[in-house]
Amino acid sequence: MLLYNSAVSGNCYKVRLLAAHLGIPLELHELSVVDRSNRADVLGDLNPARRVPTLVLDDGRPLPESNAILWYLGDGTDYVPTDSYERAQVLQWQFFEQYQHEPTIAVVRFLLAYSGEPEKHAARIAELKPSGYVALDAMERHLGGRTFLVGERYTVADISLYAYTHVAHEGDFDLSGYPAIRAWLERVAAQPGHIAIDA
Amino acid sequence: MLLYNSAVSGNCYKVRLLAAHLGIPLELHELSVVDRSNRADVLGDLNPARRVPTLVLDDGRPLPESNAILWYLGDGTDYVPTDSYERAQVLQWQFFEQYQHEPTIAVVRFLLAYSGEPEKHAARIAELKPSGYVALDAMERHLGGRTFLVGERYTVADISLYAYTHVAHEGDFDLSGYPAIRAWLERVAAQPGHIAIDA
Repeated sequence: MLLYNSAVSGNCYKVRLLAAHLGIPLELHELSVVDRSNRADVLGDLNPARRVPTLVLDDGRPLPESNAILWYLGDGTDYVPTDSYERAQVLQWQFFEQYQHEPTIAVVRFLLAYSGEPEKHAARIAELKPSGYVALDAMERHLGGRTFLVGERYTVADISLYAYTHVAHEGDFDLSGYPAIRAWLERVAAQPGHIAIDA
Repeated sequence: MLLYNSAVSGNCYKVRLLAAHLGIPLELHELSVVDRSNRADVLGDLNPARRVPTLVLDDGRPLPESNAILWYLGDGTDYVPTDSYERAQVLQWQFFEQYQHEPTIAVVRFLLAYSGEPEKHAARIAELKPSGYVALDAMERHLGGRTFLVGERYTVADISLYAYTHVAHEGDFDLSGYPAIRAWLERVAAQPGHIAIDA
């Protein structure tokens, strides 16, 4: 399978991480997260939203959206529960991730560490930062007393939230007040087959 | 089942619409989308993100996030495909909805029509509006030549995108240049068991 990828993107890392767990080889086609001028040319026919990751299956069918890709690759394996309520809880956390977590924590990280012009984005960063902590607060409340997000087992929900939480410090987020999150990050990184975002 | 609901919320409407199709009765507990001061008290133990919709199953287990609820209620019915690629495509459009569509189109609609102080939010509205049209452009490209978003059948993906697209005019979005979207909106509204957002 071919993955349109950006090395620093947490959304792309989700796919690479699950593929590593499952032993699925991926051919990577690297796209820049800064210069997006070629996105319409490269992804136009594959993804109406023209974002990475976009997966292309061996038969040529495209599949965009990181969390949709996790379900496609993961359903039927140990990384997606079979119980209907637990499956819905996995989706709950993945939709939370795309709605409240990624647009704040990932965006602040990008503007600060990867945009090349953090000063220009100072106002936006200051505006987004509190919302990022709101998302971390929600995770901390939930993870207190739990080992993983859903069903006390490592699932694609953990992969989805790990992707940008474990690099939140690059967005200058301080996790010292989040002990449950920090313990959970260690548990995720200790899973068999784990790879780093820069592996 | 009990639904923590806001009448004007498209996210809540998604749940009410699928429940109507499926003949599932819902008890509604109404919360304001403007005064959110009681959210922690009411939803604190049910939803770490403290948003509506939050569904409470008959056995008391809570389930937040509109699109996760659609999967919980819809999987195994005609509204969720069985084919694994089509299931992933449904998720693709639902994650697109929560990432690119709802945060622009729904937010502009809220600020303009429901916040009670549209003037105060004029700059934010002007900033979000072009991103809303980017989302509509992506839908239009995909719906051209198709009857529904996935598999040429009405699915929960259509319910998810219909919710805020059909009231986009309340955010002053002009759909006159989007013929494929307008025809699709009519097809969705013509489905058996359809109910209006203010039903």
